[in-house]
Amino acid sequence: MDSKYKVFKYKFNNSNEVDDSISIEEPLEISIKFKKKKSWIINIISITMRTPGDDKDLVRGFLFNERIIDKVEDIDLIEITGEIVGQYNLKNKIIVTLNNSENVNIDKIKRNFLTNSSCGVCGKTSLDSLEIIKKDKILKSLPKIAHKIIMKSPSILRENQSEFSKTGGIHASGLFSNKGNLISIKEDVGRHNALDKLIGYALEKKLINPSEQFLTCSGRLNFELVQKALMVNIGVLIGVGAPTSLAIDLANKFDMTLVGFVKQDSFNIYSNKERVIIKS
Amino acid sequence: MDSKYKVFKYKFNNSNEVDDSISIEEPLEISIKFKKKKSWIINIISITMRTPGDDKDLVRGFLFNERIIDKVEDIDLIEITGEIVGQYNLKNKIIVTLNNSENVNIDKIKRNFLTNSSCGVCGKTSLDSLEIIKKDKILKSLPKIAHKIIMKSPSILRENQSEFSKTGGIHASGLFSNKGNLISIKEDVGRHNALDKLIGYALEKKLINPSEQFLTCSGRLNFELVQKALMVNIGVLIGVGAPTSLAIDLANKFDMTLVGFVKQDSFNIYSNKERVIIKS
Repeated sequence: MDSKYKVFKYKFNNSNEVDDSISIEEPLEISIKFKKKKSWIINIISITMRTPGDDKDLVRGFLFNERIIDKVEDIDLIEITGEIVGQYNLKNKIIVTLNNSENVNIDKIKRNFLTNSSCGVCGKTSLDSLEIIKKDKILKSLPKIAHKIIMKSPSILRENQSEFSKTGGIHASGLFSNKGNLISIKEDVGRHNALDKLIGYALEKKLINPSEQFLTCSGRLNFELVQKALMVNIGVLIGVGAPTSLAIDLANKFDMTLVGFVKQDSFNIYSNKERVIIKS
Repeated sequence: MDSKYKVFKYKFNNSNEVDDSISIEEPLEISIKFKKKKSWIINIISITMRTPGDDKDLVRGFLFNERIIDKVEDIDLIEITGEIVGQYNLKNKIIVTLNNSENVNIDKIKRNFLTNSSCGVCGKTSLDSLEIIKKDKILKSLPKIAHKIIMKSPSILRENQSEFSKTGGIHASGLFSNKGNLISIKEDVGRHNALDKLIGYALEKKLINPSEQFLTCSGRLNFELVQKALMVNIGVLIGVGAPTSLAIDLANKFDMTLVGFVKQDSFNIYSNKERVIIKS
C-alpha cells in the first residue's frame, strides 16, 4: 500500500517537484481476547508499525512466530476493529479471539513483550534463554537448491513486488519451491513484518512444506529472521544483504543453510553449504 | 565490532572459501535501578540486539529517546555487569542507576515497553497517542544546508565507518555541522541503535546544537528515526534510502526537513525544502 506525496527532486543540477509514491507506515494495535473464569478479557499485546494490507496474515504469523499460539487453529476469530482513523481511512486495531484460552497466562505474555520485538528475543527477559526455538525443531530431510535458482530468486522477488519499483522503500519476503517457483510473496516497510505476513499466510493456506522449499528476503539477515524461518522448519534462508554473527550462529546451531549477498552472478554461503548444488 | 567467519563465496562460476568479516549482533539487557521507599529496586526494561561497543552511549540515548529520563544528568551510574558470556567474551548486561528516582513509576515504564520498540511507538498502548514528541519541541532557528553538503554527507559517513567496507552489514548515523563537517559517527547492526548511540554520546559530550547541525543515517527513514531526531530538536534529517509515509507526516508536523535517496548527484526532499540551499 502506498500513497502519493509531493517530492522535490534534485538530479544533475536540475530540480522539479513531482508526486511520488511512498510506502505507507501505520501503527497496528494487536489485542488478544480470551476467557478467564467464564468472563472475557481483552488485552493489548503489541503495537507494531506496518504497511497496511494482509493485516490478518501479519497477526497470524506474529502470534505463531512469537509462540503465543502453537498453530493457527488456536485462533477462533480475527477482527479488524476500531474507528476509521488517519488520512488513509484505515482501521488500525485487531482483536484475536483465542480458542481453548482458559490457560492463557497474560502476565507471561506481557512479560514476553517487555522486550523489543525487533530484536528477536521477544519472550525472554534473560540472556540465558535467548534461543527460543524448541530443540526438536532441528531440520531434517531438507531440500537441495541449485545455485542458479538462488541467484534468480531476488529478481523473481523484485518482479513480483507490487510496490518496490514505485517506492524503493519496502521489504519483501518470498516462499519458493526448490525448483525456484514463487509460492507466495508479502511486503512491508518492516522486514520482520514481511516475513510474519508470509508465514501467517502460508500457515493459514497450509502451504508450508520445508522439504521442498526455501525463503528469500529482500534485506539483511539478522537473528530475528533466522528465528522466524526456523519456527516453520525452513532449512534454506536467502537474503540480498549481509547476515549478522548471531544469524550465522543460529543457522549453524539448527542446521539451516544461510545464503547472503545474493546477486545475479554471485552469492555467499554462511552455513551448511552442502545443501547448495553448484553445477556449471 | 566484527568477527571472522568462514564464508563460501561464489562468483562468476568460481567459488572459494574465505574468512570474511561479519558484524557482531549480541543481546544487551538493560535494567534500571532506583530507590523506592528506601530500598533499591532493579528492573529489566529492555533487551535489544546490538553490535557491542558504545554500550553506555546506546543506553543513554535509548533512555532519553524513550523518555525514561529527561536529561543525561538523571543518570547516576551506568554499570556494565553480568558474567562474561558467549564466544566474544562480552558482558551483555547493563544496570543504570537513576538519580532522584523516588518518583519512578515502574509499571508505567513496563507498560511503555509492552509495545515494540522498533516500531517507534514505545510508550503508547493506544493509537490515539502515537506522537510522543512534546508539542513544545517544534523546531526554531534551524540551519540551512547547501545541497552539495547534503550529497556529500553519505560518502563522508561511509569513509568514516570502521566496519562498513569490511562487512557491508552495519548501519551508521552521523551528526554533521551545517558546513558538512562530521562531528560524530556511531554504528550498529540496528539503525535505531546507531542513532541511539549517537544521540547518547552527543548528549553526554554536550555536542548537540540544532541551529548549526544536521543528521545523516545510512538506511531508510521511518517514523522512529524521525522521532529520535526530534527528541534532540534536530531540524534536518538525511537518509540514504526511502522514507515512509509516517516519517514524512511527522517531519511535516514538527517542521523538520526530511531528505531521502541521497546519492552523489541527486536527492529528494520530502518536507520543508526551503532549508536546503540549491546553488550551482
